Amino acid sequence: MSEPVVYVDGRFVECSRAAVSIEDRGYQFGDGVYEVARVYDGRPFKMREHLDRLARSARAIRMDLRGLDSLERDALELLHLNGWGNRDLYIQATRGACPRSHCFPRDLEPVVVMTAREAHPYPPALRRQGVAAITLSDDRWARCYIKSISLLSNVLAKQKARDEGAFEAIYIRDGFMSEGSSTNVFIVEGDSLVTPPLTNYILPGITRATVIGLATGCGIPVAEESVSRERLLVADEVFLTGTTTEVMPVVTVDGVRIGCGAPGRTALRLFEQYMRLVTG
Amino acid sequence: MSEPVVYVDGRFVECSRAAVSIEDRGYQFGDGVYEVARVYDGRPFKMREHLDRLARSARAIRMDLRGLDSLERDALELLHLNGWGNRDLYIQATRGACPRSHCFPRDLEPVVVMTAREAHPYPPALRRQGVAAITLSDDRWARCYIKSISLLSNVLAKQKARDEGAFEAIYIRDGFMSEGSSTNVFIVEGDSLVTPPLTNYILPGITRATVIGLATGCGIPVAEESVSRERLLVADEVFLTGTTTEVMPVVTVDGVRIGCGAPGRTALRLFEQYMRLVTG
Repeated sequence: MSEPVVYVDGRFVECSRAAVSIEDRGYQFGDGVYEVARVYDGRPFKMREHLDRLARSARAIRMDLRGLDSLERDALELLHLNGWGNRDLYIQATRGACPRSHCFPRDLEPVVVMTAREAHPYPPALRRQGVAAITLSDDRWARCYIKSISLLSNVLAKQKARDEGAFEAIYIRDGFMSEGSSTNVFIVEGDSLVTPPLTNYILPGITRATVIGLATGCGIPVAEESVSRERLLVADEVFLTGTTTEVMPVVTVDGVRIGCGAPGRTALRLFEQYMRLVTG
Repeated sequence: MSEPVVYVDGRFVECSRAAVSIEDRGYQFGDGVYEVARVYDGRPFKMREHLDRLARSARAIRMDLRGLDSLERDALELLHLNGWGNRDLYIQATRGACPRSHCFPRDLEPVVVMTAREAHPYPPALRRQGVAAITLSDDRWARCYIKSISLLSNVLAKQKARDEGAFEAIYIRDGFMSEGSSTNVFIVEGDSLVTPPLTNYILPGITRATVIGLATGCGIPVAEESVSRERLLVADEVFLTGTTTEVMPVVTVDGVRIGCGAPGRTALRLFEQYMRLVTG
């Protein structure tokens, strides 16, 4: 099997030869933004939404990222070179390389890197069984709506979850949940969905929006409301959404059983609808 | 003139050829820590303190950074290869390279990168004249005591200051100053120094500690207390400390004149003592 091809600053190269300058500001300052889009059977899902959000993130950090159309063409070429299939398309744009200084030169050209790794979907058994989550204090910065690569808190949170045998860490800020370390969070109360509103403390998830659309489409009421940790723990169902997580039922939070301790009807129904949509 | 030599993961290479994997976790997650030490006339100042703090930062993010002694030897070799002189020694340790996933493999070897750029001290006129500072809301994460490379907030803060014609941005959290985007902050009230205590919201600055020691040594009382923005604005003097900033008098904050609008006696005295120490 040949080596995966990746995209580095306009060129397609073998992954093992792909390198960036040590003075890339992504490397020295976490000064960049990113996206992950899922490709199902050769079809990128919501690619344009991801590119648009990348552009919004770039604007929010004052990075001059132009040429979304050519970026999309390059992404499709990268998928082609890797043989399509099921892939996680990772797109990262950093502010560029220059001698280290906090301030950034105005004329710096962003550096774009893309990979298209084979997707490793979670085993169906995991979703049938549901996953554990922990909560932890949201110690991140105040601009979580920007999908930036300054992700150290998220890394530590996800690793803490893993160490405690959990799938995800749900951040709690001032007593209310914001989001998971790499997912958005929904609860089900009776027949309704509740998820935190789009404040500066959460990412406007593309899967989140898709799931809200699916729920609304089949008559499930959706409320965007603050959800306290206490309310989370007594929900009938809890589930996570994300590009690679899709819709994942949570059956315990901090060791407390959610609902009957098995994936809920609503989560499974929305997961099915989501899979129909992405492969449809 | 020959090209500067840098250190990348155990090897000494020319800067233009220095590159790291696009899957280095520093590049994709800001998952790393760093230090900057100043070298004066071939003599590194407080090198061991910087290496010790690097080790503490690494421990705080659960990175297994071993071999500080050999790191110090490599740093000295790098300085030698670059001809000593006046340099900013930059040391960065990232968690290593692996396929992208928030969680980190336990056996990953950190990647260390070092550069030894020629130092560009601030012009003496700038210090005689003093600098402007702005304040802005501290939107960073809650673990500012870790010197991590997830620095996007700091980058944006420093650039905002620069755009407004100021030298530094001073973060204000809940009404009280924490620190500058790359400096610690002191005020002078009468004959006393006041600087915020070492909470999780500020970096335990090596220059901060040195200046406190110098002040104490010459009988200037130093209080570590929370300082509100209002108290900052009516201080007799304000100054910044940092490895490359050394001691820098601030003469306006948000356009408000500090003291008589010229560098204060205490700041200049401490700067002189500091320079005597580093070149002593």
